Amino acid sequence: MAETDKSSAASHPLIESDHIEGTVVYDADGKRVGTIKRLVIEKVGGQVAYAVTTFGGFLGLGAETHSIPWEQLNYDTALGGYKTRITEEQLRKAPEFSRGDELLLSGHERKQLGDYYVAPF
Amino acid sequence: MAETDKSSAASHPLIESDHIEGTVVYDADGKRVGTIKRLVIEKVGGQVAYAVTTFGGFLGLGAETHSIPWEQLNYDTALGGYKTRITEEQLRKAPEFSRGDELLLSGHERKQLGDYYVAPF
Repeated sequence: MAETDKSSAASHPLIESDHIEGTVVYDADGKRVGTIKRLVIEKVGGQVAYAVTTFGGFLGLGAETHSIPWEQLNYDTALGGYKTRITEEQLRKAPEFSRGDELLLSGHERKQLGDYYVAPF
Repeated sequence: MAETDKSSAASHPLIESDHIEGTVVYDADGKRVGTIKRLVIEKVGGQVAYAVTTFGGFLGLGAETHSIPWEQLNYDTALGGYKTRITEEQLRKAPEFSRGDELLLSGHERKQLGDYYVAPF
């Protein structure tokens, strides 16, 4: 049911803030590894800062919530979801503050998290 | 209750996609004229394109939903909401397609709407 609607919404370049939950995140190999729970947006600029994402697809890793900097998510129109180069190993060692679900990150934490994920691994 | 939390959340530079609904929109004089229902976001760039906003505060105007281009909304930290220079007159004459609640705008419609609201009035 609603297969056409879903595919039409998936291929549309825009998405509503209240329809974001559940958007799939894939790893570099195109394997489904998690889903987006919410986006966190800069109030002034209107730019997405990071995505609170639930990971559960990595072998040996239970369901965990991580804040993922927006720069680490690349929308793939063919997949209808976001691809990330972030690895299971990186998630395991991610800063403690980036695992929370409810708190908004400070500017300092955002910078620290951005640096963590771009650092050579 | 939760006055501190509210004021702390209001002054934070970030907002969650699932907490956007109800953010207040003020007119140029700082009068409350509506509330944001949802933001519509570019999937690839992560930039907010427009805000689906319910207006109901203008004299003689019933509750109406309008898509408002992001450029027309300026976050005011003191007010804890968005200020807009859009007038009641502009809303009254806004393109029909921008009054819908459910449909995502096409690229052409976004351009047309952006032009409509920046045109001298």
